Amino acid sequence: MVDSCRECNNCKSGHEQFCQKGQTVYTYNSVEKDGKTPTYGGYSNKIVCDEAFVVSVSDKLPLEGVAPLLCAGITTYSPLKRWKIGPGHKVAVLGLGGLGHMAVKFAASFGAEVTMLSTSPSKEGDAKRLGAHKFCNTKDEAQVKDYTSYFDFIIDTVSAPHNYDMYLNMLHTFGTMICVGIPPEPIHLNGFALLGQNRTLTGSNIGGIEETQEMLDYCAEHNIVSDVEVININYINEAYERVLKSDVKYRFVINVATI
Amino acid sequence: MVDSCRECNNCKSGHEQFCQKGQTVYTYNSVEKDGKTPTYGGYSNKIVCDEAFVVSVSDKLPLEGVAPLLCAGITTYSPLKRWKIGPGHKVAVLGLGGLGHMAVKFAASFGAEVTMLSTSPSKEGDAKRLGAHKFCNTKDEAQVKDYTSYFDFIIDTVSAPHNYDMYLNMLHTFGTMICVGIPPEPIHLNGFALLGQNRTLTGSNIGGIEETQEMLDYCAEHNIVSDVEVININYINEAYERVLKSDVKYRFVINVATI
Repeated sequence: MVDSCRECNNCKSGHEQFCQKGQTVYTYNSVEKDGKTPTYGGYSNKIVCDEAFVVSVSDKLPLEGVAPLLCAGITTYSPLKRWKIGPGHKVAVLGLGGLGHMAVKFAASFGAEVTMLSTSPSKEGDAKRLGAHKFCNTKDEAQVKDYTSYFDFIIDTVSAPHNYDMYLNMLHTFGTMICVGIPPEPIHLNGFALLGQNRTLTGSNIGGIEETQEMLDYCAEHNIVSDVEVININYINEAYERVLKSDVKYRFVINVATI
Repeated sequence: MVDSCRECNNCKSGHEQFCQKGQTVYTYNSVEKDGKTPTYGGYSNKIVCDEAFVVSVSDKLPLEGVAPLLCAGITTYSPLKRWKIGPGHKVAVLGLGGLGHMAVKFAASFGAEVTMLSTSPSKEGDAKRLGAHKFCNTKDEAQVKDYTSYFDFIIDTVSAPHNYDMYLNMLHTFGTMICVGIPPEPIHLNGFALLGQNRTLTGSNIGGIEETQEMLDYCAEHNIVSDVEVININYINEAYERVLKSDVKYRFVINVATI
């Protein structure tokens, strides 16, 4: 985000992403508050931005690993904080991509027991390297059954259609499934998966500027960055194709010196 | 409920309705912990029950108005307490039946601003008599639009299929829709209604024994009972037909002296 109305209750309480005047201005693919000037993103050597939307990055952190924190980082940090996830909690992360790999790092760093839920057994090694304690292949019914009513929280990073009931039933009584990815198609779910055990399904959309700064400070203190592959600008089309194939661990970052 | 394992974490923490051994024994249409002896409910002059599952009813309250509190009462009281609903909150109650009329009474008693959401404009008078401050006819698009992003909580008591997206969009940022009724068919919803404003959809299933006692004590202190129509046993078939037509304000109670 690079701007918002700054006057509504949501903006004033640090939730500029939910500006009640609908004036949240995103860094790219958005328009300024004049309603017409396009925003072109940060793919440049310099960008002009109001100081209210600038965050400070610690010298301790490598910049290339910080770039994705402003999206995948805050998107996963914010709900973990909102739901006070930490020691004693059993947390599952559904999907190991850009969002998922940050959710694993943060949840483990906050002291939770972290289980990676994935349809790709080949990802177990990487999940554990990133901090996951357990791995469940969700294509294996027996493994899924072992985790019935097991988790306090599931961080769902998957934006393709998937079986919500199956995952809800992996939540313990009073458990919460937090969607940070959502499929474009409607979600189908059996309401009894919620009502039967007082379970909760919720969504979370990035985070405000103040919390983004808090997240960056936390990362500096705990040496957390995104796993990235730095590319030159002339690789952009190939990188795009690889993104479509989920062939990236776990974010591409463009070296703007090559633009 | 008349029994449960009493040993699992849920039972020991006062959530016998979620007995992890699956041994919750309901008063009727259930079996005892032996797995075979049917339970026949309280349609009798006397019922034998372990003291751990007996609650105390204040002499201040008329018994006929108390009977439905053990179901509709605790079912609506429990989520209002769990989500700490009270002064400063804008609460909608969806559906004015047995559950809905208790939700209105409790939410108003807890100090929230209460709005009845109903497809029947004829229910406005009764809703306000029960304690609702506002009424929204949800068949009227203009009225629904007036409540866009308005509520902090919606208590959804409807067990017929309905439009979840429409109601979710009536929730404010961080708002929560609590389902105490669920249709038998799968729920369809647009995940962005949750993710776009960090909204929450959750379920709630009656309450534990300790909380049921707390609810009864609260009712005695605040003179709250269910609105009932007391019937003789020989009226039972006609009453059943009227229940199917939602023609009851708001619960039938059988006078067991007529059995």
